[in-house]
Amino acid sequence: MNRTYVHGYEQKENIRLQDQAATLVELLHSDTVYPAGTRVLEAGCGVGAQTVTLARNSPQALITSVDIIEASVAEARKNMEAAGLRNVQFCQGDIFHLPFQPGSFDHLFICFVLEHLSRPVEALHALKELLKVGGTVTVIEGDHGSTYFYPDSEAARKAIHCQVHLQKRAGGNALIGRELYPLLSKAGFASIRVSPRMVYVDSSKPHLVEGFTEKTFTAMIEGVRDAALEAGIIDQPTFDQGIEDLYRTTQPDGVFCYTFFKAVAEKT
Amino acid sequence: MNRTYVHGYEQKENIRLQDQAATLVELLHSDTVYPAGTRVLEAGCGVGAQTVTLARNSPQALITSVDIIEASVAEARKNMEAAGLRNVQFCQGDIFHLPFQPGSFDHLFICFVLEHLSRPVEALHALKELLKVGGTVTVIEGDHGSTYFYPDSEAARKAIHCQVHLQKRAGGNALIGRELYPLLSKAGFASIRVSPRMVYVDSSKPHLVEGFTEKTFTAMIEGVRDAALEAGIIDQPTFDQGIEDLYRTTQPDGVFCYTFFKAVAEKT
Repeated sequence: MNRTYVHGYEQKENIRLQDQAATLVELLHSDTVYPAGTRVLEAGCGVGAQTVTLARNSPQALITSVDIIEASVAEARKNMEAAGLRNVQFCQGDIFHLPFQPGSFDHLFICFVLEHLSRPVEALHALKELLKVGGTVTVIEGDHGSTYFYPDSEAARKAIHCQVHLQKRAGGNALIGRELYPLLSKAGFASIRVSPRMVYVDSSKPHLVEGFTEKTFTAMIEGVRDAALEAGIIDQPTFDQGIEDLYRTTQPDGVFCYTFFKAVAEKT
Repeated sequence: MNRTYVHGYEQKENIRLQDQAATLVELLHSDTVYPAGTRVLEAGCGVGAQTVTLARNSPQALITSVDIIEASVAEARKNMEAAGLRNVQFCQGDIFHLPFQPGSFDHLFICFVLEHLSRPVEALHALKELLKVGGTVTVIEGDHGSTYFYPDSEAARKAIHCQVHLQKRAGGNALIGRELYPLLSKAGFASIRVSPRMVYVDSSKPHLVEGFTEKTFTAMIEGVRDAALEAGIIDQPTFDQGIEDLYRTTQPDGVFCYTFFKAVAEKT
């Protein structure tokens, strides 16, 4: 299973992921609430950035969160304890070979995971086996191709494309958000409902200017600088201009747009 | 005043605009309702595609709809009569020199108009004069840069860019949706609230596949074929491939995304 990450695992990155989670919680997660006693599998929990919200929104659900990387699972467990949440069990494991019986879960929750997989349909297939008939899957992904802004900037678009390119080279897909419907359809799920969750940012929303445009999106693109230059997919002046232009969109007359996609579907 | 249209005024175009209006009415207009007795100025009514909805949603408001082109005003008047609506007065006039006293209106409504103007801030300024203090302005615009789809296609993106290019050459701006906040701010309006209205289309929504992706958006891009080829901004095989790829997004596994922007602001 190819699951090389573009995002890295440094402490700074963890803080960014936590910031991102805090800003976007309402937009992405407020409508995901699982009933008491239902068994929920979170596939690919990473350091638990979404797990805290998942556990808080469904305090009586029995959540199992797995990740392939042992260090991430350990960090997630720590974050959960720090948050005082007790309804999550963690376990290290590969999405394609999880140690659960078929039909073990009522619901699947998969957030910011498929974008990193080279075989997302097969992953959904494998996870569907663990879901009981009548159960639901919830998938949330971003789509970097949904990014546009004012003032527009070709350099900024090129810098963003570096991230898309590097993620593709690592076997992932940074444009996967728009694909949730066909992916779930190909994996055999039914009653697929996709809802876009657009983050629209202008200066009347300073928490999003800082929390999303600056600290989440631009920081992420800035984070691939060395890799992009090393890969020779952009020249340094263009990349740096692109980052400057992304920061420019945080000025009082700037606007920034990005769209996440959330899908819910059923196993029939 | 530069107001050369890219869209043209043929009968086929009128039908397209009517189709578009029908599909998007709920998304764009359902939250625009003016109280009984308020005076509303619709600036740039064209053939009245939005006027019918405006008049239906606010049956007791006193609407005045103006357009610079006499033939459009005549057509709009005909459409209004056909719809049996009586709360609209039409008048031919230039947005920059309308025959009304300052402060004549309680509300301004401007839909799919600024995209065609070379001086949108000045137009908003001129119209603001006609608004009384405490009155509101509502602006709705699309943004062709908000378009993305699955399967992705460079040819399709190039074909769309032809429309953007031609509209720019005609003095307009097909990427204006994202700019509503700074435009209204520069024109001196206060309490500006912008809300994106995203049209997300997958095959679970056949009326949007046909009504929006096919008959509205792709038909519009297809409509600039001759102008684009004549201007030499694209070669014929690429343009035709782009159109084919846009139609490809209407297949069962296809997805299409476009975002309109709606802004409401106040004169203080």
